Amino acid sequence: MNERSVSDMGEWALIESIRRHLPDPPAGEIWSGDDAAVLEHGSERLVLTTDVIVEHLDFDLAYSPPQSIGSKAVAVNASDVAAMGARPRWSVATLTLPRDTSGDVVDGFARGMAEEAGRIHAALVGGDISEGRYLSLSVAMVGTLEGPPVTRSGAGIGDLICVTGSLGGAAAGLHMLREGVDGNERHSALKARQLTPHARSIEGPLLAPFATAMIDVSDGLLADLGHVLDASEVGCRVNPERVPLDPALSGLDLPRPALELALTGGEDFELLFTVPPGELDGARAALKDTGTPLSVIGEIVEGERTVGDRTLDSWKDKGWEHLQPR
Amino acid sequence: MNERSVSDMGEWALIESIRRHLPDPPAGEIWSGDDAAVLEHGSERLVLTTDVIVEHLDFDLAYSPPQSIGSKAVAVNASDVAAMGARPRWSVATLTLPRDTSGDVVDGFARGMAEEAGRIHAALVGGDISEGRYLSLSVAMVGTLEGPPVTRSGAGIGDLICVTGSLGGAAAGLHMLREGVDGNERHSALKARQLTPHARSIEGPLLAPFATAMIDVSDGLLADLGHVLDASEVGCRVNPERVPLDPALSGLDLPRPALELALTGGEDFELLFTVPPGELDGARAALKDTGTPLSVIGEIVEGERTVGDRTLDSWKDKGWEHLQPR
Repeated sequence: MNERSVSDMGEWALIESIRRHLPDPPAGEIWSGDDAAVLEHGSERLVLTTDVIVEHLDFDLAYSPPQSIGSKAVAVNASDVAAMGARPRWSVATLTLPRDTSGDVVDGFARGMAEEAGRIHAALVGGDISEGRYLSLSVAMVGTLEGPPVTRSGAGIGDLICVTGSLGGAAAGLHMLREGVDGNERHSALKARQLTPHARSIEGPLLAPFATAMIDVSDGLLADLGHVLDASEVGCRVNPERVPLDPALSGLDLPRPALELALTGGEDFELLFTVPPGELDGARAALKDTGTPLSVIGEIVEGERTVGDRTLDSWKDKGWEHLQPR
Repeated sequence: MNERSVSDMGEWALIESIRRHLPDPPAGEIWSGDDAAVLEHGSERLVLTTDVIVEHLDFDLAYSPPQSIGSKAVAVNASDVAAMGARPRWSVATLTLPRDTSGDVVDGFARGMAEEAGRIHAALVGGDISEGRYLSLSVAMVGTLEGPPVTRSGAGIGDLICVTGSLGGAAAGLHMLREGVDGNERHSALKARQLTPHARSIEGPLLAPFATAMIDVSDGLLADLGHVLDASEVGCRVNPERVPLDPALSGLDLPRPALELALTGGEDFELLFTVPPGELDGARAALKDTGTPLSVIGEIVEGERTVGDRTLDSWKDKGWEHLQPR
């Protein structure tokens, strides 16, 4: 019996309360606990994941065009698929909407979903619609794996900690959208980063042969690194000076220092991964044609978990956890 | 541009407004428009479907135990998978819930989902949780096909129209739950039929080699038969005396005649399918070990669509369509 409310429990306790009802997966499969489930289908391997976004919590029509919301719902799933080293292939969506929702809003959702699904070749193949008191959009996505999956648990001592692209932009963009901050091209770039993120769906499969562990940056760099360290039972030494800041952050009036946004702001949807030092050149070469930057931000060590002269734990609770008092 | 509200548009217009953004599937695949999408994965075939259920619309905690709600969310998807002739294999779920939801409710949802998923071997392998202003539960399910899929569009002139099990019980059960009608074992059986339906997940793949078209009975027998006739571009002659009534309906004080509940009440989750006359014995033999009844209720003809001495159209709008004024 558990009469506490879910907001008292918090997201992780809640997930654990669900997970204990589930059986263990057969050998070769991975169920809950990673970016996506890994499943065996004949001689092939699939991944399967799902994410829901909710009005007023994950998006707000006051500042999000419906097309962006649809696009983002697809992108967040593609990001989870890519983080397993898999290629996004097919998706389905469910939509709940109030009866007075304008047909234009639904049209925008559909247009955005189809556009992002088309861009990453993860066709939207079906769905379901129901009435609801507010808008929510749930997408499930199937991906295919060419080789073994890259889990969160494979990071080894001495591996280099790497991240694609740049960080902090999505969190800054959210601030600007909420506060109605307008300005120059950099403001627009940051808002777009928040509204219409693009998953690293090409990069994930390209990095898979080299990476020992991988996760997408959705909760925030350090929070997601913490998930990898926990799963791999290792520590880290991160050099904050090597964390790649979103170039659009430079010179702007920000709610928090740029480095803090990059370390703790969520929803950048970059890939955070570890490689043995001997595989770094291979990983760099794999990304060459994409033009996507790869930054080495630290290394996996035994025991300590440090970010410059602070501990990783001292940054805890700065990443975003839903269902907690805000 | 479409400034009408979604309740003015109705569910079908709404779905069409979404579908026109989607590209056509490649040869060999089926995307929207059937019970589930059919996808090609190497030399194998998958099906993928999703359904969302929403508090106060599809369920009500006032009369639905949380465990039943979780179980039903899985069953409705398994029913769609089975209706393609596929075997349910894996599912993922998203949950939105108000912050004051009791942990017991979530525990019940999870227990019910895991129990039904375990019963039909469609493991719940992952999910996502978000805050919401009311409860909703979206499940996506992947199934596997051993042979060709059974679509809605294959019914041919002269085929027999068949249905598994019995009909009308779920609609009667909903009435009893809403009105708080208690009584004898038959009342309990009908309520259970509404609260905890079981998909014909074994029967679907067994019938697949014999059926020319198949659909699950979710909207109501005649509404779902209409979907098959539309997709197959054929007519029907249904003999209402041969429609199998749920045995628990017998002798009870019902809101509408038992036959009307059986013809138009939704959510019985039986399989409605067509077979050429020469395949009927094969279909019967395939179901023998399951003990599931098979009833022949009519035949596919050219042109006319009749149910006894009435037209199929005269029953229209008695099936349930969401998002319409109620």
